[in-house]
Amino acid sequence: MLSIGVDIGGTKVAAGVVDENGKILEKLLRPTPSRDPVAVEDAVVEVCHQFSTSYKIGALGVGVAGWVDAECSTIRFSPHLAWRDEPFKERLSNRLQIPVLVDNDANAAAWAEYRFGAGKDTNIMLMVNLGTGIGGALVRDGKVFRGAYGMAGEFGHMTVVPDGYWCPCGNRGCWGQYASGNALTRDAKALLEKRGPVAQGLIRQVGSDFNSLTGRDVTQAALDGDRACEELIADIGNWLGKGLANLAAAFDPELFIIGGGVSEAGEMLVAPARQSFGRNLTGRGHRTEAIIVLAQMRNEAGLVGAADLARETIKTSRGKGLKKLAVKLGRRRRGDRV
Amino acid sequence: MLSIGVDIGGTKVAAGVVDENGKILEKLLRPTPSRDPVAVEDAVVEVCHQFSTSYKIGALGVGVAGWVDAECSTIRFSPHLAWRDEPFKERLSNRLQIPVLVDNDANAAAWAEYRFGAGKDTNIMLMVNLGTGIGGALVRDGKVFRGAYGMAGEFGHMTVVPDGYWCPCGNRGCWGQYASGNALTRDAKALLEKRGPVAQGLIRQVGSDFNSLTGRDVTQAALDGDRACEELIADIGNWLGKGLANLAAAFDPELFIIGGGVSEAGEMLVAPARQSFGRNLTGRGHRTEAIIVLAQMRNEAGLVGAADLARETIKTSRGKGLKKLAVKLGRRRRGDRV
Repeated sequence: MLSIGVDIGGTKVAAGVVDENGKILEKLLRPTPSRDPVAVEDAVVEVCHQFSTSYKIGALGVGVAGWVDAECSTIRFSPHLAWRDEPFKERLSNRLQIPVLVDNDANAAAWAEYRFGAGKDTNIMLMVNLGTGIGGALVRDGKVFRGAYGMAGEFGHMTVVPDGYWCPCGNRGCWGQYASGNALTRDAKALLEKRGPVAQGLIRQVGSDFNSLTGRDVTQAALDGDRACEELIADIGNWLGKGLANLAAAFDPELFIIGGGVSEAGEMLVAPARQSFGRNLTGRGHRTEAIIVLAQMRNEAGLVGAADLARETIKTSRGKGLKKLAVKLGRRRRGDRV
Repeated sequence: MLSIGVDIGGTKVAAGVVDENGKILEKLLRPTPSRDPVAVEDAVVEVCHQFSTSYKIGALGVGVAGWVDAECSTIRFSPHLAWRDEPFKERLSNRLQIPVLVDNDANAAAWAEYRFGAGKDTNIMLMVNLGTGIGGALVRDGKVFRGAYGMAGEFGHMTVVPDGYWCPCGNRGCWGQYASGNALTRDAKALLEKRGPVAQGLIRQVGSDFNSLTGRDVTQAALDGDRACEELIADIGNWLGKGLANLAAAFDPELFIIGGGVSEAGEMLVAPARQSFGRNLTGRGHRTEAIIVLAQMRNEAGLVGAADLARETIKTSRGKGLKKLAVKLGRRRRGDRV
């Protein structure tokens, strides 16, 4: 069965037809039309219609940067788009007449890694995506853990510094303000403003227009050998490792998968994260330690994961029916009343 | 079926015969013999023999303050007792010839609350026990979540203050150093040492021997109306709420259950915790918020929970066998090969 995966970000919508092995058969990219939910909905419907002319589609999965309820149907809040308690699943399934699943984009990405990427065959894995902020998700026993109301996995909003940097969520000192692309850009700008000796390489590269500096610029400069930028990435890695140690205290996973834009720095990020994790892990020396690896599915994780979760949901609901039948039959053979 | 529950603490061993409704039929209390694992093992065997003369016992559950592996068999480390990679389950079951389960004491307490106390009928509940430090556990979908290697739920060792107070775990700034009996005693001593106007009530009560002051003294003084002690409890409540908000970001539970010695302060602790939780919860206003309640099983939770977990494990392993059979039979009826 083929399914469509759509990843709705703040700036672009990525959509693709995905097969049962997680392979993308066709892909479309377009800018996110506006902050208007109806325009976004129209765009999703349109790409689905377009794909339907060439493929027989069984389900649609949509990943969004936002809080989605535990039933994978209503978007409670999205920071980048004007969604407030939007019954997105119902709207889309009414218009498209196929099963629809809506999920948080980090859940979708984690699912893709679990099924086809760095997390295959794990029982308990946590995904931590370093983008603008931190997106997180937990997959355990072959299921995404969504919490009671769908908001689980918001690791980036755990406070790591009392009265620390302000976070767009309205709190201060959130982990996502210390280990993310935002943190990287903020620190790089602070470094540039001082115009000190270690900043000269970056100044040569970006000129005097500090405001247009992005996390990607810093990562690229680091990969090109700029020492100050390497240090800034290592600082992010250090905070990453501290936060992972906190998560290990709570979840004790087998595996951490590090994804998102900042993870393109690769070992330059992950090596200091491993070191800081090892230094801050409670019970170190008396426990089996989680492994920290880079994501494998890169920026297609959200799309592929959403598509596969939608297919999985159909399979599971069918499977549950069969299991109930089997248990019923078993009971009959034991002579119990059904 | 009756089972025995044993709760091994740093100072005392509590053991009881527990029925299927969580009722304790008989109970024994004795001091923890020594830090020697063999002496503790002998004590457990002895109480089991004693109970066996009057009751037909089906299983033994042991709760310990320490890290137990995910198979509920080996104690990896205990801070108060000299257990290091101790195969406690095997030793006990060899000597007693009944099924044995060994678990972390907070897991056992959480299970008791889930089955018979404040957590009945919840799908996702977190237990936070404020004792010397913080013990924690998660029950979800009718199971204790133990993590990949049994160390999940160590919420008290999540860092909340960078470079904060030293914790016995070897890290600094652990939550358990800010919301616990230890924190209460430390802060009360600091207050007493200053001998300022707000400390006079407590000074009248405990005299000049500050070193013997316990968290229980402070709680009692607060319950008796001492204003400074009420403030100290509220400070603990404030840190409790902040930590719960962190846990809500990660787990999004329905319910938090607050237990342990400090919880005897009751609403004086929980009211400020609720306020601070509400102030620090990410996404507040756009999510369903977890409820914070006091534990109901008090200091019998560990014993009852350990007994019931041991019984549950036998039931589940039997249940799995039956389910496999039913699925097999179901497959046959559908004509698949088995």
